[in-house]
Amino acid sequence: MFYSKLFGKTVKTDPKDEISVNAKLLIRAGFIRKELAGVYNFLPLGLRVLTKIANIVRDEMNKAGGQEILLSALQTKNNWQKTGRWNSFDALFKVKSRYEVEYALGPTHEEVLVPLVKQLISSYKDLPLSLYQIQTKFRDEPRAKSGILRGREFLMKDLYSFHQDEEDFEKYYEVMRKTYLEVFKRCSLEAIETKAGGGTFSQFSHEYQVISEAGEDEIVYCPGGDFSENVEITEVKEGKQCELGHGSLKKVKVIEVGNIFPLKTKFSEVFDLTYKDKNGKDQLVVMGCYGIGISRLMGTIVEVHHDDKGIIWPESVAPFMVHIVGLDMDDKSVADRAEKVYKLLLAEGIETLIDDRQNLSAGEKFADCDLIGIPYRVVISKKTGEKLEVKKRSEKETSFVSLDELIKMLK
Amino acid sequence: MFYSKLFGKTVKTDPKDEISVNAKLLIRAGFIRKELAGVYNFLPLGLRVLTKIANIVRDEMNKAGGQEILLSALQTKNNWQKTGRWNSFDALFKVKSRYEVEYALGPTHEEVLVPLVKQLISSYKDLPLSLYQIQTKFRDEPRAKSGILRGREFLMKDLYSFHQDEEDFEKYYEVMRKTYLEVFKRCSLEAIETKAGGGTFSQFSHEYQVISEAGEDEIVYCPGGDFSENVEITEVKEGKQCELGHGSLKKVKVIEVGNIFPLKTKFSEVFDLTYKDKNGKDQLVVMGCYGIGISRLMGTIVEVHHDDKGIIWPESVAPFMVHIVGLDMDDKSVADRAEKVYKLLLAEGIETLIDDRQNLSAGEKFADCDLIGIPYRVVISKKTGEKLEVKKRSEKETSFVSLDELIKMLK
Repeated sequence: MFYSKLFGKTVKTDPKDEISVNAKLLIRAGFIRKELAGVYNFLPLGLRVLTKIANIVRDEMNKAGGQEILLSALQTKNNWQKTGRWNSFDALFKVKSRYEVEYALGPTHEEVLVPLVKQLISSYKDLPLSLYQIQTKFRDEPRAKSGILRGREFLMKDLYSFHQDEEDFEKYYEVMRKTYLEVFKRCSLEAIETKAGGGTFSQFSHEYQVISEAGEDEIVYCPGGDFSENVEITEVKEGKQCELGHGSLKKVKVIEVGNIFPLKTKFSEVFDLTYKDKNGKDQLVVMGCYGIGISRLMGTIVEVHHDDKGIIWPESVAPFMVHIVGLDMDDKSVADRAEKVYKLLLAEGIETLIDDRQNLSAGEKFADCDLIGIPYRVVISKKTGEKLEVKKRSEKETSFVSLDELIKMLK
Repeated sequence: MFYSKLFGKTVKTDPKDEISVNAKLLIRAGFIRKELAGVYNFLPLGLRVLTKIANIVRDEMNKAGGQEILLSALQTKNNWQKTGRWNSFDALFKVKSRYEVEYALGPTHEEVLVPLVKQLISSYKDLPLSLYQIQTKFRDEPRAKSGILRGREFLMKDLYSFHQDEEDFEKYYEVMRKTYLEVFKRCSLEAIETKAGGGTFSQFSHEYQVISEAGEDEIVYCPGGDFSENVEITEVKEGKQCELGHGSLKKVKVIEVGNIFPLKTKFSEVFDLTYKDKNGKDQLVVMGCYGIGISRLMGTIVEVHHDDKGIIWPESVAPFMVHIVGLDMDDKSVADRAEKVYKLLLAEGIETLIDDRQNLSAGEKFADCDLIGIPYRVVISKKTGEKLEVKKRSEKETSFVSLDELIKMLK
């Protein structure tokens, strides 16, 4: 992509109406723009990152046997009344058509999926079943000051699993615990698996928490990795000594990037979701649900991976792998050289952005490059020759390598 | 994919509450399920087709220089008031939050994108610009009886282009005309480019119309390909002789699968979207918009490509390329052979569904296979040996080929 043509350039000053680091950096660097409080538009750079995160999540859900589906945002009021959530789900947006028909605007999808599964399964042979979607959710949040960490409209992966009994559910719950840790690892996030409350359905659930001052949650945890509980449920105090000798427990602010939740038969009972067991007897289906906020994950990565110059994207989710900074681009031979390198990288399948703008100082171009945060910076100028001047965004040192060496590094 | 595990099996009888062919077939074959009138859930088979169509459209938009973005569904009321469409756009869903904030639920995105582009461009150097998204739209349609041809919630590609002047716009309009014909060709649809009215903005626009009894539009056209106008604007009558000697003009029912539309400066004026020209003078940006209904395209393909047995998917959008019908699957040697072929096809990157169900008659399995409509049927049974029994869904003849020959056919 030629930066001169890219929709969404950098801006020098922080947006006045944002207080979160993720929104400030993502807006300044040209990834997103605010539509209204808690609602953002994704520019080309931002959509590239969002799509990469979604694809990592999709890949891991498929590996865990999930089948991808796409459920509707407009949902039947009647099913929300059946679960009692038409009135009790505070953040539910309600839509009334001009024909006075009322819909729920989906904040979650149990009310759609459970009746749908009831239509399509009948026997123990149809179980277990694991279904997920990557879809836009709507929630009428009271506050929306955290950028894309908490939106009124946001992209989410929600997976629901269906089982013959608790035992089979628990087996799958263990699979998903591993799957979740793998997702966050691939996004370069250290997520702490944390015990949390189970609401009205269950005794407990698990949350995946990333340490950050931007977080709205708090956990008490052992840095040794053997203990973590949300302060909402824990009876353990900060400073207590870890029983395994890892030292004292800490209390920290965290961002919840995912959660997994035993639904048990809560929704199966409401919608009479049963199956015939081997003896032909009707049994209630046992369910679990498993969420990851895709856009929240993107915001969390920015909260964790940045410095005072800008974003530092992990390679797995970066919008491009290489950012060619062309200096002296009014010199045709330099511009030709830069474009040649750009095309050779593309031909190797390496996603590359080239800053081809003329009449901009090296300082301005480097500042933009640091703000955008693409993993590899390659400078091409009058001074550089056959060897390319390469610098990783996450490191200070510059090295000089040939194009072939660069391609090898990136593959 | 093992059919025994697939979420969404075939059903034998037509759904009672559907009158359109596309909804009947897609529901019976296990591709979609109705959530409510005009709103459908996509099961794994359905989502696979929808994604393939979206990817064809994406590919062609990228080739035409489009940059992909993702705009919000919740939109600012104020911008809809500015264009006057808060009151005049009949099908606009309005959402009121619990804090009495009102939003538009996006049926189209001029009210989001034009103010956004105003924030991000300023000079003639930023033009032309071509931006698109593939995103869920909401429209409060009075009638929704055509399955996924006309939904209250549907997937759409909308592209908007921005130009310095009419001349540059017209150049791009010509590019998009070719691009649109290419999209429909890749989806195996013969779309007739048809002159239609331009609304309040423009003298004319172009619609892409596919002949079908399920269509809500009518055109008068020349089968020779040199004339087509929507009956809403045409002054020409059916039966008139084509001036180029192609015989008499016909009147037919059609489905509108896409349209391209000169917006001129209609929205630029409202939002004061200007750029500085070479002389530093402010000029209004000239716009065009270009829509394709992705889910409607899927429904149209079904309306056009089916017979009395079921759907006949074109290869480019089929959910799988090969449908292995395993007969005698209770015989372990047959089941092993079928699974071996399945795995070899997967290893070659050929998307394959295998009907591994036991205790089902050949007749039932063939009927399901015809209903689902995957391009290649491969039968494996006690009777079949090294040679595979292959039949194309679109043809009557069966042939016997080796696995290697089949793979060659499919690559």
